[in-house]
Amino acid sequence: MNLKHKILDMVNDDLKGIETALKQNLNPYLDIVSEVAGHILFSGGKRLRPLLMVLSARLCGYSGNYDKTFSTIFEYLHAATLLHDDLVDEAKLRRGKPVAYSVYGNSIAVLVGDFLLARALSIAVETGRNNVVSIMAEVTEHMSQGEIHQIVRKGQLDLAEEEYMMIIQNKTALLFKGACRVSAIISDAAEKEEKAISDYGYNLGIAFQMADDLLDYTSDTSSLGKEVGADLKEGKLTLPVIYSLKRADLKDRAQMEMIIKNEKFSVHDFEILIELLKKYEGLKYTEKQAKKYIAKAKEALMVFKPSKTRKILLGIADYVLTRKA
Amino acid sequence: MNLKHKILDMVNDDLKGIETALKQNLNPYLDIVSEVAGHILFSGGKRLRPLLMVLSARLCGYSGNYDKTFSTIFEYLHAATLLHDDLVDEAKLRRGKPVAYSVYGNSIAVLVGDFLLARALSIAVETGRNNVVSIMAEVTEHMSQGEIHQIVRKGQLDLAEEEYMMIIQNKTALLFKGACRVSAIISDAAEKEEKAISDYGYNLGIAFQMADDLLDYTSDTSSLGKEVGADLKEGKLTLPVIYSLKRADLKDRAQMEMIIKNEKFSVHDFEILIELLKKYEGLKYTEKQAKKYIAKAKEALMVFKPSKTRKILLGIADYVLTRKA
Repeated sequence: MNLKHKILDMVNDDLKGIETALKQNLNPYLDIVSEVAGHILFSGGKRLRPLLMVLSARLCGYSGNYDKTFSTIFEYLHAATLLHDDLVDEAKLRRGKPVAYSVYGNSIAVLVGDFLLARALSIAVETGRNNVVSIMAEVTEHMSQGEIHQIVRKGQLDLAEEEYMMIIQNKTALLFKGACRVSAIISDAAEKEEKAISDYGYNLGIAFQMADDLLDYTSDTSSLGKEVGADLKEGKLTLPVIYSLKRADLKDRAQMEMIIKNEKFSVHDFEILIELLKKYEGLKYTEKQAKKYIAKAKEALMVFKPSKTRKILLGIADYVLTRKA
Repeated sequence: MNLKHKILDMVNDDLKGIETALKQNLNPYLDIVSEVAGHILFSGGKRLRPLLMVLSARLCGYSGNYDKTFSTIFEYLHAATLLHDDLVDEAKLRRGKPVAYSVYGNSIAVLVGDFLLARALSIAVETGRNNVVSIMAEVTEHMSQGEIHQIVRKGQLDLAEEEYMMIIQNKTALLFKGACRVSAIISDAAEKEEKAISDYGYNLGIAFQMADDLLDYTSDTSSLGKEVGADLKEGKLTLPVIYSLKRADLKDRAQMEMIIKNEKFSVHDFEILIELLKKYEGLKYTEKQAKKYIAKAKEALMVFKPSKTRKILLGIADYVLTRKA
């Protein structure tokens, strides 16, 4: 049994509970809202964010009955941003299905995104903890700005590693961190534990996004469920390219720039680019960096004593590095 | 001095305070976010929602220093929905200026909307009252669904008055009600006062939207700051049309339907339609209904003893009926 299946086996009941909660807490008055929200929510997502919250809560000794309910906050928020981001990215496929805005139109996609954001907020209020709502607000502010940051720097070849790090922190890592931190808060965990589980989430989130950016160069469309090379087509410069561009000699850099600037690059062009990413070790470096953050994430968990739950969270960290989609 | 100027004279200091608060509480880390948010926020909006909150709080005896700060919640939320709605409506002008998405692109408009929503949320958390955040979540859920409701019924001639009422309640009146109700909550007002000021806001909101829908048939582009007949072009059936369609004889109804269904109706067509709205009293009926809700709004204020603030709120109710833009 590979790592993914081992983890899935151990979290099977949790995932079932999360699925039920996601269905039960949607509550729109219009059927079309269920349909569009369902299109994005029930299309084979990994449920990584709510799962992190449920497991983190267990690790922090949560004893209430609302972990699954509260975990929907982070899946609804995630789905809301996907609805808005797909529109932003003009993406065509998401998890192997046509994206919502292409099926239902821009307007409905944006507004159902707003609805999901509001639902996440309503459920956050139900925790009865002011700082949970506060974290949610902060995460949303940073996510929208992270996306905007990426857009305003689109196609600009001088994007440095530092700025890339800031973007992925805002658009991805803070949501992971938020899911973990909220679980510590609803569990009344000690400050030391809240910090540890937040660090786990943050570092996991950074590594997750780096692995995601790698997959755009190493996977194929059928296993990824979206177009390969999509980042580059959208003008998004990610770490493999940023690192390689910086190290390339003049001739190779010129060739890379030509390919990157040509929005309609061919399959052949893309293969040349990948060779150059290999030559200048952009892929290897990104993998190394992701590994570093995964190590930090796992290290943070050492504050907690050994348990089945800790083992699963450590396993998830390893999975993030090896995942194929 | 006309009513509008009389009111403006009495709320001059409040409006200045609200302007300052709107500038101070935005806090993005990206300049482009200030620019786009500024495009919608500082373009001559009436500040009706934050003003209602500040005045309602005063009426309820609020004695803190944060009324202006908290009032930004409702202007940021309003601006967020405008950014998303203009995209939805494919509008071209807003307050006489090109709409944000046409200047900055769809993606930025959507994401700055998300940012404003998140800012509103952050400030709601600062009130330290769980039910303020809860009201905000509920208002946002209803607003998005009200807009979606309008879209799914676009161009459908069987929209009844009842369903129209539900749409304008969700997309407009609940935000007005929310602004007023929150002011009662932060003032620790008695239940009776909270209910009264909420009723004022709700009824004012309904009348405001009816007046808005009337203006689409009675105003001209230069004073309205947006295209006249825009609702109809977008397939939005509002009360003047709904009422007239129901009462028209077969021949007139056929003509109205032809004009409504033709997205590219001419100025001449539009004039014919207005004549028919007059003939079947759709304009008069809408005005009568708006007056009824204004009367209810004013009646609700009778719970409070006479004061300068009550007088201003009564004046605002009258203004909603007479406004030209």
